[in-house]
Amino acid sequence: MSSDEVNKDGPNTSTQTIAIIGCGLIGQAWAVVFLKAGFRAVLYDLDQAATSQARDAIVGRLIDLASYQLLEPGEVERLESNIVIAPELKVAVQDAIYVQESGAENVDVKATLTAEIDQFAQKDVPIGSSTSGIPASDYAVDVQGRHRCLVAHPINPPHLVPAVELVPSPWTSQATINTVSELMHSVGQSPVLLQKEVDGFVVNRLQGALLTEAFSLLEQGVASAEDIDKAIADGLGLRWSIMGPFETIHLNAPGGIAQYVERYGPLYRKMIEQNTSAEDWRIILNKGLEQALCDKHAIADLASSQAERDRALMALLAHRQSANKRS
Amino acid sequence: MSSDEVNKDGPNTSTQTIAIIGCGLIGQAWAVVFLKAGFRAVLYDLDQAATSQARDAIVGRLIDLASYQLLEPGEVERLESNIVIAPELKVAVQDAIYVQESGAENVDVKATLTAEIDQFAQKDVPIGSSTSGIPASDYAVDVQGRHRCLVAHPINPPHLVPAVELVPSPWTSQATINTVSELMHSVGQSPVLLQKEVDGFVVNRLQGALLTEAFSLLEQGVASAEDIDKAIADGLGLRWSIMGPFETIHLNAPGGIAQYVERYGPLYRKMIEQNTSAEDWRIILNKGLEQALCDKHAIADLASSQAERDRALMALLAHRQSANKRS
Repeated sequence: MSSDEVNKDGPNTSTQTIAIIGCGLIGQAWAVVFLKAGFRAVLYDLDQAATSQARDAIVGRLIDLASYQLLEPGEVERLESNIVIAPELKVAVQDAIYVQESGAENVDVKATLTAEIDQFAQKDVPIGSSTSGIPASDYAVDVQGRHRCLVAHPINPPHLVPAVELVPSPWTSQATINTVSELMHSVGQSPVLLQKEVDGFVVNRLQGALLTEAFSLLEQGVASAEDIDKAIADGLGLRWSIMGPFETIHLNAPGGIAQYVERYGPLYRKMIEQNTSAEDWRIILNKGLEQALCDKHAIADLASSQAERDRALMALLAHRQSANKRS
Repeated sequence: MSSDEVNKDGPNTSTQTIAIIGCGLIGQAWAVVFLKAGFRAVLYDLDQAATSQARDAIVGRLIDLASYQLLEPGEVERLESNIVIAPELKVAVQDAIYVQESGAENVDVKATLTAEIDQFAQKDVPIGSSTSGIPASDYAVDVQGRHRCLVAHPINPPHLVPAVELVPSPWTSQATINTVSELMHSVGQSPVLLQKEVDGFVVNRLQGALLTEAFSLLEQGVASAEDIDKAIADGLGLRWSIMGPFETIHLNAPGGIAQYVERYGPLYRKMIEQNTSAEDWRIILNKGLEQALCDKHAIADLASSQAERDRALMALLAHRQSANKRS
């Protein structure tokens, strides 16, 4: 978008619209993603009060991004003018080229909401859901335009962590998948395309596998929670912020992944076979884990800990962008 | 160490000595860790030719660090003067305050080498092994000074990834554990202390759990290797480079980890129960995984891909250091 297309005195009528349905933390972060990329974000929430709170929160996030040089100075005001609050769902979605639904994590709520969006959105406009656990074949089965429904599950917070899982149901059209994938690429997200619906999708299956082992190590008294956290944050996580697990092991043997699997496969197999699945995590929590974490981040201060995490992510993102420019 | 203690014209006789036994890639990176912290690194390898190659490689790594502002300009020359090649094992270890052994990954080789180090090193000087898979109770059982033996397993490459697992055997003395832990802290590493020996220690158990799920997702055709890698490198890995898995989930629910476990525990449990352990990884390799990775990084070019990874890690490390200074 060239700068002369921008009307600095009000909403730009030539700007395309993204509907943000559900304005909690995830919806707000999605609005930031699309605003940053030059779209108008039209907000709607079943709770009318939530949308005006959301507007303030979104502007706050834009200001934060500018302070990390992730937005041009002075851009905040222009992007702010592209935030629109819709009084009803129909108004929110009728002009949208894409609808990102981030409603409550409940199959009935999502089914009703999606059917309503489908009724008002223009033909073939894709409807993505931020759900982390409910596949489209559950919530969209009875939606007339179910071919345009799919899951677009972000990693929290989506304006700072680019991966987004695109999970089509068996009846999601290829055109829908392609459009959403291209849109996500174009706004700087990194789409992870699933070929089929599985519980937990890809990201939470990977996180769950690692967490299960982490809880199990803690339960067995192998190491403290703090030390297990260090093994990731000062170890594996550093490598994994640069390249994924397959690429990592490909570079970790002189003969590449085949040699790595030959050398270490038997050791990993032995570990897996030994694995006793961890006790109910709730029981492990009460053996000091919850206390240790609350000592570090008290529940009452969690919002400020999250803000601190987001500042660290913004600094990391700014670093990645300048590193990409150099290379 | 104040600057007037440094003799710029040759080895500084007041500098303490670390013995680097085994001068492959890991030994070289350990030498960099200790040189950077102001120690003299005395190198020894069963293969005499390996030590002079190692010296050149170590100097190359120091130059790389300086180019990323991870060493003061002009410091390379001074650190280079602290590299000493020992003609025999006895000479290498006799003055050392710590011995880092990075020999071949073979229990008999390590047993013989450790017994010999034990014979020549000063009383109670700890002997750490870089082994990724052989516990000290296997290789040090018959070593007279087995109380001073423990595993000090780095994450490759140790001069760029600070986590190091300290794995005592049942007879490793508490004094040994404390000394090595303090030494590792003092040189900028991040020790992860294990309370007991388990196959794969902590880091490779966590990596193995995630890899097992990654191979399984690939085998089941859920997503491509490239997309699974993106789910980590553009997703979970970004968060995990800032904080570990427990801290991550503690910040991912308004009520902290207890609420997170309450909300998502059942979903994770369902995933784990469904898990069919992945087929032999070698079979999955041949279904396109190896080809995809070799298309990205050809085996013949792996050294340059590794150098590229190390440049990315150096840039990340420089970023982390400047971020820590700001906060």
